[in-house]
Amino acid sequence: MDKLAVIKIGGNVIEDADILQSFLTDFAQIQSTKILVHGGGKKATAMANQMGIPVQMVEGRRITDTKNLDIITMLYGGKINKNIVAQLQNLGCNALGLSGADGNAIQAVKRPVKTIDYGYVGDVVGVNTELFQILLKTGYTPVCCAITHNQKGQLLNTNADTIAATLAQSLSQYFEVFLGYCFEKQGVLENIDNDSSVIETITPKKYKSLKAEQVIHSGMIPKIDNCFNALKNGVSSVKIGAPKMIAGITPYTSLKLKDE
Amino acid sequence: MDKLAVIKIGGNVIEDADILQSFLTDFAQIQSTKILVHGGGKKATAMANQMGIPVQMVEGRRITDTKNLDIITMLYGGKINKNIVAQLQNLGCNALGLSGADGNAIQAVKRPVKTIDYGYVGDVVGVNTELFQILLKTGYTPVCCAITHNQKGQLLNTNADTIAATLAQSLSQYFEVFLGYCFEKQGVLENIDNDSSVIETITPKKYKSLKAEQVIHSGMIPKIDNCFNALKNGVSSVKIGAPKMIAGITPYTSLKLKDE
Repeated sequence: MDKLAVIKIGGNVIEDADILQSFLTDFAQIQSTKILVHGGGKKATAMANQMGIPVQMVEGRRITDTKNLDIITMLYGGKINKNIVAQLQNLGCNALGLSGADGNAIQAVKRPVKTIDYGYVGDVVGVNTELFQILLKTGYTPVCCAITHNQKGQLLNTNADTIAATLAQSLSQYFEVFLGYCFEKQGVLENIDNDSSVIETITPKKYKSLKAEQVIHSGMIPKIDNCFNALKNGVSSVKIGAPKMIAGITPYTSLKLKDE
Repeated sequence: MDKLAVIKIGGNVIEDADILQSFLTDFAQIQSTKILVHGGGKKATAMANQMGIPVQMVEGRRITDTKNLDIITMLYGGKINKNIVAQLQNLGCNALGLSGADGNAIQAVKRPVKTIDYGYVGDVVGVNTELFQILLKTGYTPVCCAITHNQKGQLLNTNADTIAATLAQSLSQYFEVFLGYCFEKQGVLENIDNDSSVIETITPKKYKSLKAEQVIHSGMIPKIDNCFNALKNGVSSVKIGAPKMIAGITPYTSLKLKDE
């Protein structure tokens, strides 16, 4: 089986032009086939402010009305995605940008309203694995922004972590998949105030105790749940770390299903 | 040889949601493989105004500084492109949006400065025909926005008419290509004030006399030059008309190299 790296970059990587450039240089050098997944983070809020469009966040999640969806589509699907693609092209990587609507790449449903109406937010329901196989096998590197569609003409703002995990799982039928999450820390930290306290390995047993000790809490829990789900569904390897981990320079947290 | 329709839509089609929806419905029903090319027209100026960014036009052409390029990338590559793609998906057409940077689809050079510095404006120098063949032969419909790249990380604002003509010419090696330009009139008019005075056929001889009579002038000249170039370079058929011409409902102007 051919190897495939699915790498997700967080907002902090995108927001700093130097960090992004350095990351893209490392990413372009990954020898296996690869997919990049990105969101846009704080840039969407900044742009909404500039355009005088109100932004409403509930528990760290954006309520996506029509105007905010337009901003996300312009930024994630347009400015950020196309500039990443152009930079990767310059680095010798034949990148090709995709939203979930492009080639029906990633299908979703609008999140059902329970207590909160998140607006045009998508929950992923399917991946067009055929499209990704065609692109990967003919030498293209998909660069996926955090937008999906409902196959009925509606674009949907979608969590980039979930997109990365879903792509990794779906493509594990055809490739040996490594899933990497790059963010501002060098991994999951034992002590949030100590950047060098990276936890080397998290197994389900260790995860349970880290949650009990409140070392892992709030926003990190759905991220790690995503990772374990990916491992249970065919992904070979999951790592969380700084952008430089993909060059093998910095430490990272490795997630494993079994104690070794 | 398989047939391929390359259809370019102008700003007026994009600016009116109903006209766009009607056009996309007709476009989705084209039986042959097909490519859609679009710009964005006046929306870019409106958005620049909303964001307080100055817009400078010289002889109908936009001087594209960094901020205006960002707007174009957000609008053409993001909002307009992704919404067209999502709508086509809903209409059963497996559309896939591309800028010229995506998959190195369309290469350009920054226009050299003579008397006027147009800024980040691209002159097309090459097409990745392999990418278009892969997509077309596996059932995808490329939707190309009016952005190219210089292969060195720089996106470039590029004339959509030229992109359509260049794609049509390049792909005429592999397909029997029909090139269609859809705009607000039902064709080239004998009398600009009479919408039903559509000129049925323009040959080079007729073109010469229409220019001499000032029936064809200013902005229409480069458009028609583009069309004749396409015909001379392998394109089978070129038509200019309203969006409804692709459904065979309205008249159009047909360009031909020879008198029949």
